[in-house]
Amino acid sequence: MSDEAPRRPRRLRVDAAENRARLLSAAKDEFSERGANSSLNMVAKRAGVGPGTLYRHFPSLHTLLVAVVSNDVDILCRRGRELLDSENPDTALRRWLRAFATHAATMHGLLAVQMASEFALGGTLAGQHQAIIETGDALLDRAKRTGTTPQHIDIRDILRTANALAWASQQAPDDSDLLDRLLEISFPEPR
Amino acid sequence: MSDEAPRRPRRLRVDAAENRARLLSAAKDEFSERGANSSLNMVAKRAGVGPGTLYRHFPSLHTLLVAVVSNDVDILCRRGRELLDSENPDTALRRWLRAFATHAATMHGLLAVQMASEFALGGTLAGQHQAIIETGDALLDRAKRTGTTPQHIDIRDILRTANALAWASQQAPDDSDLLDRLLEISFPEPR
Repeated sequence: MSDEAPRRPRRLRVDAAENRARLLSAAKDEFSERGANSSLNMVAKRAGVGPGTLYRHFPSLHTLLVAVVSNDVDILCRRGRELLDSENPDTALRRWLRAFATHAATMHGLLAVQMASEFALGGTLAGQHQAIIETGDALLDRAKRTGTTPQHIDIRDILRTANALAWASQQAPDDSDLLDRLLEISFPEPR
Repeated sequence: MSDEAPRRPRRLRVDAAENRARLLSAAKDEFSERGANSSLNMVAKRAGVGPGTLYRHFPSLHTLLVAVVSNDVDILCRRGRELLDSENPDTALRRWLRAFATHAATMHGLLAVQMASEFALGGTLAGQHQAIIETGDALLDRAKRTGTTPQHIDIRDILRTANALAWASQQAPDDSDLLDRLLEISFPEPR
């Protein structure tokens, strides 16, 4: 750092972090909406940056996909930990399952991108999968102990359910609040 | 008919009806378990009849598929009408949704047979679809009026949910009671 402009490098780092976050969010939208038809140029355009900035952050489609998945799982698991502190354990579990279903819908879109690009995301997804199961299990455990959620329910089965609802909602892509309605049937908010 | 054996034709008709029912049940099992790999010879073998008997009842794969679908939908709708007379309207709806999910799983298997055989079952399925929606709607309506099922729930959305759970259960074909567990999460039996 120079004596003259101590704030400039910091400003640059902040810009870079903002661009990276914007690119990840734009990539997530592009991949989940357009699946196998996604384009990297569209990702840059959605993020409001030039293609050069995109390639500086993510030199290949693979690095971008891995970053999108990791970022989405990080956000999902952070949300789960926050919900562990919320008041009603049953509601906390349901809210998190809704977040998971949205995540699952995004992942179905990413899977289409991955298959079109012919490289395997499997290894990356397996590690993330474990983090999700652990987060969900902590919420489920609390909902069983201090809420009204039945003891026999398994975390893998409720994740399968949320994933199936995400799949169903993608069979009717024009029905934009279908996933919300389906989640409300299987995991109703208390009234 | 001859004067000599008035009971024989009747006995023959009873045998024919029994063979037909056995063939339909065997075909349903074969199609749902083996999908695109189904074989008509295996259907005859499962039913315990010769291939000639199968072809006399169902001269083509198409007539057999249509008969299996129609028969399954008839049974499903009859079960729905019976449940309209049962005591608890919420439980009646849930029980019927479980029957529907099993039906949907069978239909996914049939779809694979249909795609492998390259003819369209679409027209047949559309008519049956309407019968299912009407049956489900009658049960849902009663559960809303005299049970505790929320007013905002739509029959198409709960059928989509049950169908999605059938899809999920077929992603893990070795887990034979997965569909039951998933149905118990989305449509729990009252305890």
